[in-house]
Amino acid sequence: MFRYNKLLVLVLLLLGTATQVQASEPLASWNDVASKAAVIDFVEAVTQQGGPDYVVPSERIAVFDNAGTLWSEKPIYFQLLFAIDRVKALAPEHPEWKTTQPFKAVLDNDMDALADAGEKGLLELVMATHAGMTTGEFSTTVTDWLATARHPRFKRPYTELVYQPMLELLAYLRDNGFKTFIVSGGGIEFMRPWVEAVYGIPPEQVVGSSIKTKFEMRDGKPVLVRLPEINFIDDKEGKPVGINQHIGRRPIAAFGNSDGDLQMLQWTVAEEGKRLAVIVHHTDDVREYAYDKDSHVGRLDKALAEANGNGWTVIDMKNDWKVIYPFQKH
Amino acid sequence: MFRYNKLLVLVLLLLGTATQVQASEPLASWNDVASKAAVIDFVEAVTQQGGPDYVVPSERIAVFDNAGTLWSEKPIYFQLLFAIDRVKALAPEHPEWKTTQPFKAVLDNDMDALADAGEKGLLELVMATHAGMTTGEFSTTVTDWLATARHPRFKRPYTELVYQPMLELLAYLRDNGFKTFIVSGGGIEFMRPWVEAVYGIPPEQVVGSSIKTKFEMRDGKPVLVRLPEINFIDDKEGKPVGINQHIGRRPIAAFGNSDGDLQMLQWTVAEEGKRLAVIVHHTDDVREYAYDKDSHVGRLDKALAEANGNGWTVIDMKNDWKVIYPFQKH
Repeated sequence: MFRYNKLLVLVLLLLGTATQVQASEPLASWNDVASKAAVIDFVEAVTQQGGPDYVVPSERIAVFDNAGTLWSEKPIYFQLLFAIDRVKALAPEHPEWKTTQPFKAVLDNDMDALADAGEKGLLELVMATHAGMTTGEFSTTVTDWLATARHPRFKRPYTELVYQPMLELLAYLRDNGFKTFIVSGGGIEFMRPWVEAVYGIPPEQVVGSSIKTKFEMRDGKPVLVRLPEINFIDDKEGKPVGINQHIGRRPIAAFGNSDGDLQMLQWTVAEEGKRLAVIVHHTDDVREYAYDKDSHVGRLDKALAEANGNGWTVIDMKNDWKVIYPFQKH
Repeated sequence: MFRYNKLLVLVLLLLGTATQVQASEPLASWNDVASKAAVIDFVEAVTQQGGPDYVVPSERIAVFDNAGTLWSEKPIYFQLLFAIDRVKALAPEHPEWKTTQPFKAVLDNDMDALADAGEKGLLELVMATHAGMTTGEFSTTVTDWLATARHPRFKRPYTELVYQPMLELLAYLRDNGFKTFIVSGGGIEFMRPWVEAVYGIPPEQVVGSSIKTKFEMRDGKPVLVRLPEINFIDDKEGKPVGINQHIGRRPIAAFGNSDGDLQMLQWTVAEEGKRLAVIVHHTDDVREYAYDKDSHVGRLDKALAEANGNGWTVIDMKNDWKVIYPFQKH
């Protein structure tokens, strides 16, 4: 027994060494800038056992917006590009779409008419393309689309348009005992088929917008059918609601990029203790896109003002990141 | 480097040994019965690397009903006893309750009148006691109640009326790489304050019924206010819906005790591959309670028939378990 305990100490020492070696160069694609230092300072503070800011591992919850924070969102949200492609694919079964808005606008590639359709039109597009099938069928459709669809500017699969520095950040946080969650305005079932492979975030750690589903028996087999009815919108005031509903405890770190993330950031920092609130600011129109308060997609206005007023961390993508996408690594 | 690798092998061997020692006596409070064998056969099959039934750890999702499966539910659901105690505590602020049903019935301890109030009356009780405060305030109220309330028959805190063999089962599954979830008809926010300490299940792995919440700024501080409006009922057909919404993948093992769990069990076994569906049958009126198809609380009728017809595992509490509650261990 004594021999066993001595060996166990050796084991723990060795594992400790291995972990240190692995973590020796976290955030390799980040320049030595204030945002990187803020992240590392925070992680070191909350993981320092016996330190004043120590947080037990079970409470190390970090939440990430998706579009604009983990992957790109220009020229428009990728999920909307999916809906447009689905309308085109389904059009032969819907001859009436040739003369009905907003479907006609999509089939005619008439983006002005599509914009005119407004929120109501977008909702119709989403319901026509996201509802009416089983959950399994929808998941397959998303996977098939991602395998073939290409981004109009970068000519690459959408899942390659993720931010290398954020992938490193996710890994760094997990190496330090954090549980990483997505909290996105996007569709929860649109994200789940691919986020585990791309971000290392399992489906059960995804919070998002959703439509209702219904349990049904079909030929003696249970299925969940997706209904054309909004269940939950995980945006703005909805994000803290979604976090509470799914996670049931308050994050200590939150990462967003737009005004849609403001309430999530406010909710995260509102409790006592060391907290980290980070805004990804799109400043690089050469390697990605540059936009903030005047953009319809991913508008960043109030949240940036609040970040500056409260000393939150702002990532300047052009200045802070050595590369944007994984394929730019050499 | 070579030296390091040799040590690493030693490390892994040691860890392997330690795990085996720890797992040498799983399910210690179970008699050597068919239900115990079925659980162990299942776990060994899905964890045997290279075996025909192997399941990768990320897909090892096990779901548990709560009332009647992990803790007792007699004489009535403990959450309803909480609501009754809350009505009594809040009565001084609500003089009108003295003459208004269903509150009058509660204050008069008139269980017949309470039963007459039906589902609508119960809903009124729940809304009057579960809504109108912030999420933080409600959590504190639940914690305070559990600290002082005692079960009418066993004169112990409700959190001691959990099933020792099920605690061992939860630990055994987690030791074998499973992620354990609660999927309960009970209130999600009623369970979250205590399930981590009692079951080792973190708040983010709890699925349950819920009312809506609303994000609000109060004195510059964000809060979530609980609204008197149903958000989701996680029972019967709702359980697969809740599982899909929260977990986003299908469990491979499910544990329930009543007809409210039938669809969850059907959903779990409906996919190809090794699956485990288990019913806890309340057969012990000496150490706990004996009830099934004629009980209003935790009625077990159709699910038992389906279990018998499909070869699901049925736990006979009286015969299969050496002890029911942790305090009966010696």
